Amino acid sequence: MNEQILKALDWRYATKVFDANKKINEKDLNVLKESLRLAPSSYGLQPWKFIIVENPEVRTQLREFSWNQTQVTDASHYIVFTALKTMDESYVQKYIEDIANTRNLPVEGLKGFKDMMVANIVNGGQKQDISAWAQRQSYIAMGELVLAAALLGIDTCCLEGLSPADYDRILGLDNSQYATIAAVAVGYRAADDKYQDLKKVRFSEDEVFQTI
Amino acid sequence: MNEQILKALDWRYATKVFDANKKINEKDLNVLKESLRLAPSSYGLQPWKFIIVENPEVRTQLREFSWNQTQVTDASHYIVFTALKTMDESYVQKYIEDIANTRNLPVEGLKGFKDMMVANIVNGGQKQDISAWAQRQSYIAMGELVLAAALLGIDTCCLEGLSPADYDRILGLDNSQYATIAAVAVGYRAADDKYQDLKKVRFSEDEVFQTI
Repeated sequence: MNEQILKALDWRYATKVFDANKKINEKDLNVLKESLRLAPSSYGLQPWKFIIVENPEVRTQLREFSWNQTQVTDASHYIVFTALKTMDESYVQKYIEDIANTRNLPVEGLKGFKDMMVANIVNGGQKQDISAWAQRQSYIAMGELVLAAALLGIDTCCLEGLSPADYDRILGLDNSQYATIAAVAVGYRAADDKYQDLKKVRFSEDEVFQTI
Repeated sequence: MNEQILKALDWRYATKVFDANKKINEKDLNVLKESLRLAPSSYGLQPWKFIIVENPEVRTQLREFSWNQTQVTDASHYIVFTALKTMDESYVQKYIEDIANTRNLPVEGLKGFKDMMVANIVNGGQKQDISAWAQRQSYIAMGELVLAAALLGIDTCCLEGLSPADYDRILGLDNSQYATIAAVAVGYRAADDKYQDLKKVRFSEDEVFQTI
């Protein structure tokens, strides 16, 4: 497994040109979705929603607000990452009920955990910055997705160069709790994407790590 | 590989109690470090530094500012994630020179790419929010680390419940370009960590995904 992970990390690159004819099969897609759904998040609150855009017309519309990058329309799948804009007590309550149901526990027994989350997140220091906090959590899921895909021989390109406000409008998010933060195009590199041949550029181990 | 990834995603949990006697071997540690170093980031700018804290006294000091969580001292390795606070043109220039050296290209040929990054990141819309931007990128690396570790049978616990200001002071970051944002404890679960037996709580596929 060591070698497989190293190989996947090296093989992966931000794919510029996808092969529009190659589609991810259902079994692989399920693994990619689980790498998002099961990703860790602060308190396990999962402050995210992932929108898989299949409709070609919607993808054409989104591409217009993504610097016209071809990945938006040509990748097998296009996943828009959205994160919570705010968090209220009812969201935390729903999560608490999920824990109680999943683990067959009485809701009352989770009151301490709930109160702590409400104090810290809903009313506490993170209140003013729920959006930034939720965005960071979503990027953990992005990291899992990118690595899981590479291990399956599936290419990705993370896109931050897009207009969140226009995405929100096109995807009907304006009156929702969620806002667009980024997207990941997922599929298979085109044979003629010249970026696949470029050597990966990274700072050296000495520059990136410090051991104390 | 599909099954291995699904198994790792399910096996992983936020480890509360680490076995203080079990150490990660060099070969596995190298894979974990590469999962950080080779992670994708916006423009490939890698606005991060990872501090691996081996010194037991420093770990004891950090634990005091981490709600006294035992993972800080007991995990095999403790990796503090730091992100750039600001970005200046010299940072971008260094990256450009790295690209030129790695790919054997003339620096002048990269002027357009450099100018775009300086316009967007150093002087542009993201200027006021370099810190939040850099933090998000670091969380991509966190996601890769967590999945890579799980695939190797190595446990992790991501910690946001820590005092960044005190970490910065203890780690000598106060006058640096970097600031603490989070940490990941990495090692092996203790046999008696009861959290490993709890069922994972996640919103259902219908709640997390929307297909358009």
